[in-house]
Amino acid sequence: MSEIRKDYITDTWVVISEERARRPKDFIRTHLKLQNSTCAFCGGNERQTPPEIFAYRSPGTVRDSPGWWVRTVPNKFPALRIEGSVEKHSTSIYSSMSGVGCHEVIIQSPAHDRPIALLPVDQVKEVLEMYRYRYEDLSRDRRFKYIIAFENHGAEAGASLEHPHSQLIATPMIPVHVASELRGADNYFTDMGGECIFDSILSEELKDGRRVVFQNESFVCIAPYASKYPYEMMILPRRHMSRFTDLTVVETSDLAAILKRSLYALYALLDDPPYNFYIHTAPINGRDYSFYHWHLEITPRVSKVAGFEGGTGFYINTLSPESAALQLAGEPARHAQSTMEGQVATAGTNLRLPEET
Amino acid sequence: MSEIRKDYITDTWVVISEERARRPKDFIRTHLKLQNSTCAFCGGNERQTPPEIFAYRSPGTVRDSPGWWVRTVPNKFPALRIEGSVEKHSTSIYSSMSGVGCHEVIIQSPAHDRPIALLPVDQVKEVLEMYRYRYEDLSRDRRFKYIIAFENHGAEAGASLEHPHSQLIATPMIPVHVASELRGADNYFTDMGGECIFDSILSEELKDGRRVVFQNESFVCIAPYASKYPYEMMILPRRHMSRFTDLTVVETSDLAAILKRSLYALYALLDDPPYNFYIHTAPINGRDYSFYHWHLEITPRVSKVAGFEGGTGFYINTLSPESAALQLAGEPARHAQSTMEGQVATAGTNLRLPEET
Repeated sequence: MSEIRKDYITDTWVVISEERARRPKDFIRTHLKLQNSTCAFCGGNERQTPPEIFAYRSPGTVRDSPGWWVRTVPNKFPALRIEGSVEKHSTSIYSSMSGVGCHEVIIQSPAHDRPIALLPVDQVKEVLEMYRYRYEDLSRDRRFKYIIAFENHGAEAGASLEHPHSQLIATPMIPVHVASELRGADNYFTDMGGECIFDSILSEELKDGRRVVFQNESFVCIAPYASKYPYEMMILPRRHMSRFTDLTVVETSDLAAILKRSLYALYALLDDPPYNFYIHTAPINGRDYSFYHWHLEITPRVSKVAGFEGGTGFYINTLSPESAALQLAGEPARHAQSTMEGQVATAGTNLRLPEET
Repeated sequence: MSEIRKDYITDTWVVISEERARRPKDFIRTHLKLQNSTCAFCGGNERQTPPEIFAYRSPGTVRDSPGWWVRTVPNKFPALRIEGSVEKHSTSIYSSMSGVGCHEVIIQSPAHDRPIALLPVDQVKEVLEMYRYRYEDLSRDRRFKYIIAFENHGAEAGASLEHPHSQLIATPMIPVHVASELRGADNYFTDMGGECIFDSILSEELKDGRRVVFQNESFVCIAPYASKYPYEMMILPRRHMSRFTDLTVVETSDLAAILKRSLYALYALLDDPPYNFYIHTAPINGRDYSFYHWHLEITPRVSKVAGFEGGTGFYINTLSPESAALQLAGEPARHAQSTMEGQVATAGTNLRLPEET
């Protein structure tokens, strides 16, 4: 019998329909090769991108030339443009506004074949610091209400260039998925007398253990209870903070380590599958969002979203998050049993993050 | 400059970002060939499916044997199962219920290579009558709150079998996308003193004309103002009715004609692209939904949904619905100008539905 689970945060339901033990190879897909000839993001081809906004680069090297290791440029084909004011037009049934916003690209490495899964942790940390710098800079623009950083990895996840890169889009309104998370978190906060729903989930998951994939001093990676996709993960800071930009230096290192570890687990288990990740943080230039708890969501794209999901928003997931956590965390039962005689082995709870591979 | 448009019905925003004139060939994709060997849905292989629920078949032929032209069987790998009661379990943060529901497959033709676009209109009508029969039958089951009929066409739209078929799933709750449409329609109805938002959209679109793709006596096919996907279409009944099952015999014929015409336009323009369609109708076994207006949505899958869309629910569409309507409707300007001297030519407004191809 399948099970229907509710995600209280976004008020959505998911069918967990695992009819048989699913193995990783059930989800491994043919790679669609993207173009690689004269890649604009490779080191040496800096002149093929719009002028650099910022880069981590060696002393003595100059803008738009080699010597960088993380580099931010405007998107050449932006969905939203930085120029102009936000102009709104409405009729009784239709409403539109000018496409003002910002669309930047963060090139994670000059190397074409080094996804985050294979980058040194220090470099992943610099990618995250770059996000933080761009968030802080763009937050000053009062036209923007929200900023999202995300990565599309692989053609099936919507990447149009193979070279690993993330993107950052600032929008003049709060997007609907974020709005529903805020509403869910706010309702819980009010109902529970000031308790954060993400804190409650963290403490419940750590107690239960079956859906914990990895953890370190500052972060926990879980396979969410109502996962929409096989191998979906959520990385939550242990400390309650509403904004990604509240990260301390130490927390940034810990996030880099657990993000790399989580993406490496996907890479190894599913042979470099397509995935998206994105950061959900509080909106900017608005009210107080102290009830919210920022986090990072990883959604592998190894199954198809079909008409049922599109028409209903109700997802069918053929891999339980408990199985996903067990597979992603490796063979935790062995670790757990050797250290906790008589206790039930739980997925990943006792795994240490390995040193950088 | 791109434009951001709001869909009042579901409270979502879409970026219409058409930087240059997009032509159909920009969206044509490589076909992923699905398996065809010993197809369980082909005529003659009836024993490979679970036992038939109902079929339109020639007199004298028997169940689970040839002689049928539209056939309904239970899904062999159902997401939800018909047996059992709806049992709910809740903790403070997690909620689940047993996966009770219903999952049926409607095989639209014994022929492997005849999608709806290429079926005779009479047979499309029988497919729709089959939906209606199954809706009516399953509505009697008090455990169910919603029924959705949908088609996944092509591997990239989530079809796991190539043989054209639609599916019908009954769920024990109202899915989130439907709930948000109901909320939007209900709010508008209340705010506007009893006016239906879909009726307002219909009358506005018919007056404007730029987004009208096809129309006949009972139905209008439009490219929605805030389309999330290139070539998205919505087929709306002219008569206000909350339920798909309220269709008259004549309306069923008209729906068959416009559905086939719309899917044929996609087929011809984009070389048989992957698509989903689904019917949004009022929930069953619940309150009065007379403020709602059922409709059919067609979502071609010719672009990728990436991290931005996944993380925000905010879509970037690289083809304006006005361009989509113009392309799908053929060359309407010529028709319009020849009959309406001096009037602005509008997409499709004056196109007659062709006879069955």
